[in-house]
Amino acid sequence: MTSAANPAIDFRSDTVTSPSEAMRSAMASAEVGDNVIDTDPTMRALEERAAGLLGMPAALWTPSGTMANLVALSVHLSRGDRFLAPRDAHVLSNELGSAAWLAGGMPDTLEHDAGPGRPSHGNLRASIGARQGPYYALRTTLLCLENTHNASGGSVTPPHEHAQLVAAARDAGLTVHLDGARLWNAAVSLDLPPAALTVGVDTVSACFSKGLGAPVGSVVAGSEEFVARARRMRQMLGGGVRQGGVLAAACLTALDQMGDLAVDHENARRLATGLGEFGWEVDEPETNIVLARVADLNVTLEWLGKLGIAALPMAGKVRFVTHRDVSATEVDEAIRRIKAGER
Amino acid sequence: MTSAANPAIDFRSDTVTSPSEAMRSAMASAEVGDNVIDTDPTMRALEERAAGLLGMPAALWTPSGTMANLVALSVHLSRGDRFLAPRDAHVLSNELGSAAWLAGGMPDTLEHDAGPGRPSHGNLRASIGARQGPYYALRTTLLCLENTHNASGGSVTPPHEHAQLVAAARDAGLTVHLDGARLWNAAVSLDLPPAALTVGVDTVSACFSKGLGAPVGSVVAGSEEFVARARRMRQMLGGGVRQGGVLAAACLTALDQMGDLAVDHENARRLATGLGEFGWEVDEPETNIVLARVADLNVTLEWLGKLGIAALPMAGKVRFVTHRDVSATEVDEAIRRIKAGER
Amino acid sequence: MTSAANPAIDFRSDTVTSPSEAMRSAMASAEVGDNVIDTDPTMRALEERAAGLLGMPAALWTPSGTMANLVALSVHLSRGDRFLAPRDAHVLSNELGSAAWLAGGMPDTLEHDAGPGRPSHGNLRASIGARQGPYYALRTTLLCLENTHNASGGSVTPPHEHAQLVAAARDAGLTVHLDGARLWNAAVSLDLPPAALTVGVDTVSACFSKGLGAPVGSVVAGSEEFVARARRMRQMLGGGVRQGGVLAAACLTALDQMGDLAVDHENARRLATGLGEFGWEVDEPETNIVLARVADLNVTLEWLGKLGIAALPMAGKVRFVTHRDVSATEVDEAIRRIKAGER
Amino acid sequence: MTSAANPAIDFRSDTVTSPSEAMRSAMASAEVGDNVIDTDPTMRALEERAAGLLGMPAALWTPSGTMANLVALSVHLSRGDRFLAPRDAHVLSNELGSAAWLAGGMPDTLEHDAGPGRPSHGNLRASIGARQGPYYALRTTLLCLENTHNASGGSVTPPHEHAQLVAAARDAGLTVHLDGARLWNAAVSLDLPPAALTVGVDTVSACFSKGLGAPVGSVVAGSEEFVARARRMRQMLGGGVRQGGVLAAACLTALDQMGDLAVDHENARRLATGLGEFGWEVDEPETNIVLARVADLNVTLEWLGKLGIAALPMAGKVRFVTHRDVSATEVDEAIRRIKAGER
Repeated sequence: MTSAANPAIDFRSDTVTSPSEAMRSAMASAEVGDNVIDTDPTMRALEERAAGLLGMPAALWTPSGTMANLVALSVHLSRGDRFLAPRDAHVLSNELGSAAWLAGGMPDTLEHDAGPGRPSHGNLRASIGARQGPYYALRTTLLCLENTHNASGGSVTPPHEHAQLVAAARDAGLTVHLDGARLWNAAVSLDLPPAALTVGVDTVSACFSKGLGAPVGSVVAGSEEFVARARRMRQMLGGGVRQGGVLAAACLTALDQMGDLAVDHENARRLATGLGEFGWEVDEPETNIVLARVADLNVTLEWLGKLGIAALPMAGKVRFVTHRDVSATEVDEAIRRIKAGER
Repeated sequence: MTSAANPAIDFRSDTVTSPSEAMRSAMASAEVGDNVIDTDPTMRALEERAAGLLGMPAALWTPSGTMANLVALSVHLSRGDRFLAPRDAHVLSNELGSAAWLAGGMPDTLEHDAGPGRPSHGNLRASIGARQGPYYALRTTLLCLENTHNASGGSVTPPHEHAQLVAAARDAGLTVHLDGARLWNAAVSLDLPPAALTVGVDTVSACFSKGLGAPVGSVVAGSEEFVARARRMRQMLGGGVRQGGVLAAACLTALDQMGDLAVDHENARRLATGLGEFGWEVDEPETNIVLARVADLNVTLEWLGKLGIAALPMAGKVRFVTHRDVSATEVDEAIRRIKAGER
Repeated sequence: MTSAANPAIDFRSDTVTSPSEAMRSAMASAEVGDNVIDTDPTMRALEERAAGLLGMPAALWTPSGTMANLVALSVHLSRGDRFLAPRDAHVLSNELGSAAWLAGGMPDTLEHDAGPGRPSHGNLRASIGARQGPYYALRTTLLCLENTHNASGGSVTPPHEHAQLVAAARDAGLTVHLDGARLWNAAVSLDLPPAALTVGVDTVSACFSKGLGAPVGSVVAGSEEFVARARRMRQMLGGGVRQGGVLAAACLTALDQMGDLAVDHENARRLATGLGEFGWEVDEPETNIVLARVADLNVTLEWLGKLGIAALPMAGKVRFVTHRDVSATEVDEAIRRIKAGER
Repeated sequence: MTSAANPAIDFRSDTVTSPSEAMRSAMASAEVGDNVIDTDPTMRALEERAAGLLGMPAALWTPSGTMANLVALSVHLSRGDRFLAPRDAHVLSNELGSAAWLAGGMPDTLEHDAGPGRPSHGNLRASIGARQGPYYALRTTLLCLENTHNASGGSVTPPHEHAQLVAAARDAGLTVHLDGARLWNAAVSLDLPPAALTVGVDTVSACFSKGLGAPVGSVVAGSEEFVARARRMRQMLGGGVRQGGVLAAACLTALDQMGDLAVDHENARRLATGLGEFGWEVDEPETNIVLARVADLNVTLEWLGKLGIAALPMAGKVRFVTHRDVSATEVDEAIRRIKAGER
């Protein structure tokens, strides 16, 4: 990605950020313990703070957001269970099918009829269908939401729609998991505390290693009883680590910087404006993800690469993600290169 | 289901048929062997005949259509694989999720944009998407078709559409499995041999215990190498049986009666006409399944029950299935009861 | 297996028997129904009779003994559970690992310290070990017994040893499943009703297609609540069949003939005596299985084949199984051929 | 674990060690990258160095030794496969059964007939048994060794025995995985390079977070093709992390300190001598684990706890593990407390 007179600008993901000096310093001085046979004190502090922020009784650290979701779904789902998630949800499209083959659920998709990444509660109610079939029928037991919704361009589900979806799920006796990998972005975008976006859910996952910039780590939160089961599931998957406090320290620092996500959102709007001026079809970004519809996806990605601009394909579009390590100046430079067609 | 002055008329499924005298006689005189450690001769005869009819090199008997599909999908799919099937396909909605949790695939649905139960090849090509992603991406490896498509009212995919779908799958390197539980109905409806509807597929399942009226048994067909792997998988699931020839004998007899399915199709059209006269919204049936859209599904099913007419819900509609054990006279009687509102 | 001047004598398994005329007649006249969406009346009659014989509240037919065990273990075991079974138990060695990969248990073996196929209760208590470990530890939750024990030569666990094992399991909170594929043989051998050998277990499986001679079918029995869960699991595996009454009718006839197993036991002793006279090391058989220790297993099996005597290897020995389709005269003929070294 | 006039001495595991200042410093200055979509440079450096030390072409970092083994076994095993491991192997007893339910193998145990933790090659050959059975038989496909063997007191398999075992496995066409969580201890104990102990294996796992003292991380090594498949499997399990270089930096530092393990071994012998003088039955430790046979395990552990000495039960004995954070002085103090019966 590097080299060349003009350095590359990396919009591939907000996962590419390097840890800040503050994070590195926190890691170097973290108080630690064996988090498998004891509880690492910094891990515990992180889990307690994250649980509080997410409005949940308890939380559990995991090495990745994929594992956070996998642990939750494995606790919630059994063979013969059907679960619903919005089309292109990360648990459906980007976790190598583990929700199906490992957690054991048969997925079905909810179309985005209420807006990008947002199924309506009416749609949900219709999709749930009959609550109790005969013994030989699938049973719909889980709703898995995603806020912000990655593949729809970081779109935000607002609290009143969230509440309607949760109510529909509850009426049918469904458990609700919220994939909140970028819930922090949704909260900052709405200027609400994250817990305002988890009302009524059973469990929620969230990542420290995306926009918040921590090197490694996510969390899954829920009841004490859920976390006890999740801890055992995490161990089964090999996600139990020893002196994880060194990572948790950086995650705690990352949480201190949550407000900075507003800068990424501003940069995303700046980028979208520029791309629109260039003539690409781009929706106004709601958070830190910009999706551009282009004529030939692969050709465009290659062309961007030659300009020293890195992006990834997502749901048939070019996805640009803004993050801590891309400044407004670099956004402007990227727009310049695209308009000029040269690096 | 029985009792009452006027006997019940059972449209719940073509699986409810009783074996004919010819089948019972065949069972009583079948030549048999231990089909686990040897090959039962009548089983072998059935498998060879079914393979021939289905245009495949080899075939394997299974106790149910669910196991036939499960064995095929378990051979074809691995963890990290994505497979595509038409919305409301039996493997998605009616097999308790085993395609996901046991066979190991992450499903995605194809909408019926070419007609009832029929995705278009353009839709398929778009859904397959990029063929080879990075190591952390799902890989689309399998297309699972269904002909006739149960939940769409026994709708038939004609050979030219089938060929287009198979070609699109082949172009992307996908394996193709055809759930042909009622392929016999499609063949009779089109006045074609069944093998005309399996062109280009890797594997196909078909049932003897639906419209053909055998008491127990299905088959999954494919290459010799596939069948060798399928036989091992069937044993793992507990589907290997000993003197299965007694069942296979009835299945062979059932195949002799395939042409009789035309009577069921005629009866389905007769029923659809009557229901339309009564004022229900009913599509012209293509085979032996009639779907009626009614205002309140549960109320209607209960009302039908009081009239001595048994039907099941399917995809939000009332499903009536015609079969060997419902005569034209009984169809007329059912229409009479519905119009009269009394048994 | 057939052909030649002197016909082959088949000691490979008691699964090779052909259905009797009485069974064929029963199949031809069986009252049937759709056993997936209704209950087939002959199936119900068989399940009720089998439950009664096995001393259980309810029972469920399955296509094979392998599926009967698999369904039971799948209901009993979860990921993270450890289960115990005697060395060379069928669920460990002869069911393609489904107890592990599908039912989800981690097995551990109990040595046969109380006799052939029979672990002692002290051994069991020691193997169970600590009852409740930390969250990251396996939990021992199930004991799986086998009576008669196939790989130990059809050895019988007598009621008082059974009671001690069950008591040890109960003391540690374990569920108990009994693989009773040949429980009928144990009962006839002890001149006890089968239910005398299931005292205290949660579930028991038994086969109709081994010594009893039915063409297809087994059963798993337990509480009503267990059977409800088992029925759903059976459907998942593709083991739900339609007009299964045709098979159940033969199974009911098979149960009428249970006493005939004594003839097989007598023939086994006759065979063992002959083999001992020939110089092979053979234990006195307890039921219908004779194990012979020979110098070179493969060479011996091939030599027997040339003599027109079919047998299978089992646990490093030659296994001969007596059954309905081998008469005392044929046993004598087999001994003659072995002693003469010619067919 | 803390408090009291005389501080607690923690022999529970070598996983409890705190990262050294050198490790913390290395973490704070590590060069990093996104190790999911790119390759983190420090991760790459660690993986290359570990591969070299282990004598393998390539290696892959994992968050834990449990995941390292799980990834390897998931790549090696399929449903219907049987694998062999020494009694009380970590993959059998301490990984929550994932080798069975997730990797898909049916385990069987090898007794320690050649010494503590060491099956003989003759035993192995006999256990493998017939190489190719019929389609309905388990197939033995994998040998999983463990060096040092934890539950046998950190016992070492010497190179010539290792070679015999590998040869026996090879003769039968088996793949060989070596659980080398503490392979470094075996190498230091024998004064050999670690690669001398992996000759002929397909894959090997090793831990940085045990005796070497790194906070988090293990590795699994094998061919390039294996590592490509393992990387995908790691991602499925949620073990792919982003800027893992911060952890890898500490692991690299840990490798520099490998020679220090000799101190732990000396301390283990010192402890064993003291416990023997006290009257407990203790084998001469080969590495850093001391197992003491005591009359009542739970009573003894509780009594030790009152003395401020922490240990864990292992295979029915008291397990003491020496490590970087327990000095010779602390060992002497622990012996003093035990002999005095007071803290």
